[in-house]
Amino acid sequence: MTAQTVILEVNRVATDMKEALKSRIDILAEKGIVPCLATILVGGDPSSATYVKMKGNACKRLGIKSIRIELPEHISTEELIAEIQKLNVDPSVHGILLQHPVPQHIDERAAFEAIRIEKDVDGVTTLGFAQNAFGFASFPSCTPAAILAIMDYYQIEMEGKHAVVIGRSPILGKPVSMMLLHRNATVTMCHSKTVNLEEMVRLADIVVAAVGKPNFIQGDWIKPGAAVLDAGYNAGNIGDVDYEACKDRASAITPVPAGVGPVTIATLLKHTVDAAEKLA
Amino acid sequence: MTAQTVILEVNRVATDMKEALKSRIDILAEKGIVPCLATILVGGDPSSATYVKMKGNACKRLGIKSIRIELPEHISTEELIAEIQKLNVDPSVHGILLQHPVPQHIDERAAFEAIRIEKDVDGVTTLGFAQNAFGFASFPSCTPAAILAIMDYYQIEMEGKHAVVIGRSPILGKPVSMMLLHRNATVTMCHSKTVNLEEMVRLADIVVAAVGKPNFIQGDWIKPGAAVLDAGYNAGNIGDVDYEACKDRASAITPVPAGVGPVTIATLLKHTVDAAEKLA
Repeated sequence: MTAQTVILEVNRVATDMKEALKSRIDILAEKGIVPCLATILVGGDPSSATYVKMKGNACKRLGIKSIRIELPEHISTEELIAEIQKLNVDPSVHGILLQHPVPQHIDERAAFEAIRIEKDVDGVTTLGFAQNAFGFASFPSCTPAAILAIMDYYQIEMEGKHAVVIGRSPILGKPVSMMLLHRNATVTMCHSKTVNLEEMVRLADIVVAAVGKPNFIQGDWIKPGAAVLDAGYNAGNIGDVDYEACKDRASAITPVPAGVGPVTIATLLKHTVDAAEKLA
Repeated sequence: MTAQTVILEVNRVATDMKEALKSRIDILAEKGIVPCLATILVGGDPSSATYVKMKGNACKRLGIKSIRIELPEHISTEELIAEIQKLNVDPSVHGILLQHPVPQHIDERAAFEAIRIEKDVDGVTTLGFAQNAFGFASFPSCTPAAILAIMDYYQIEMEGKHAVVIGRSPILGKPVSMMLLHRNATVTMCHSKTVNLEEMVRLADIVVAAVGKPNFIQGDWIKPGAAVLDAGYNAGNIGDVDYEACKDRASAITPVPAGVGPVTIATLLKHTVDAAEKLA
């Protein structure tokens, strides 16, 4: 198995996803509709600014309108929510993305909850999470959806497989666990309080790393033949998985950089087009 | 360990929970408020009728008002939702319980979703599920909450323990998994598509059976010293766990009948009082 390790070429997945959106955007254009994503950036965190810019540029290249709202660091939760509510009622805006994280003094959860469910293309509301957990059609969180899109693209089987998810954040670990469960995987949710994490990872057919610690997942933790999906993005463009050490044991593995990230952006674009079609 | 197996005397847990409600109900009475639970039963399923009756009787014994609405088998989803909406706006009703299951032709999920979140004392709405998964204060599903109440009562440690949940229903397996995760257990969600279920159960420090198959969990699957919580209720009052075979290996185990059930009812009563206090 180790001789056949597939490096998951996520750029290919992202390119194919974006390619598939073009004709849908053209059909909307014939109706006079331009899909529109509004992004909100609070404060001056440079990596957040980079992410938002990348998302805006990706929109532009595809013919999706993007509105970039930049708010000062010291804005209050109420003021942020007021901005979100303006976008909620603006019929020309189809999707709203509030870049995570916001400054500490803001109630991020309250701000996320203010996003109208029909425009929650980033999948951050609790209602969106639950609809996703119960298998309804709505917008799942983009990174979890990207992870599943990559596995589908490479026909990595999920049904009956043991997936071990490391990390339990509301926009990554929790939703990806529910999505894998919905695809009939047996899912183990691990986190900072997990005892014997290595032993748990050793049992996994599918490893999803979403823990936020650089090179945390070690090569000898990986069961030979497992698929390894690295959703970590740490300072210096380093993933959560020690890629070099893991890649020879894994049957398939995503690199970082140019890993899950590009597919996450493609998923966000897809959701924005979905939202525009629903409101058309 | 096996010499010290604790039979979890759930009736004691339920009695203590109900005892603790009495003074709260008295305080509400001084304000002229009687907590009120409305139960809705659709059709003539005899075990459903029994459950609803038990819940109503439990209310009565404690001084909680209960309104029992019985609807004919052939009612439509829309008619059922109209009944729920009447209760949503009735200020004298604090909690609404729609007895599961409803007849096949009814969209049960749509009916559950119609229940106003502030009155969802049975914890069946998707929003309630998500708030619970994210650790907000709201009403978790009653059976999962009962399972945690039993473990708390007997001081069964959850943090860092490996909990294996068998079953993934929206009102049992999924919410109990999220609640155990929130209590810092490592949680594995198993179901009908799980391969090698026995091996997974053998790894568990805590086993939660919510699968709906009589005597399904076998004695030799249980790791010596594990805690076994049986949320199954199958025809003939038989649990999901082969109690006789499991009890000598488990460090703690809930029997069926008189198992998780009575604590589930006590939890429902507690939620109804909580709801009345919030609206007071």
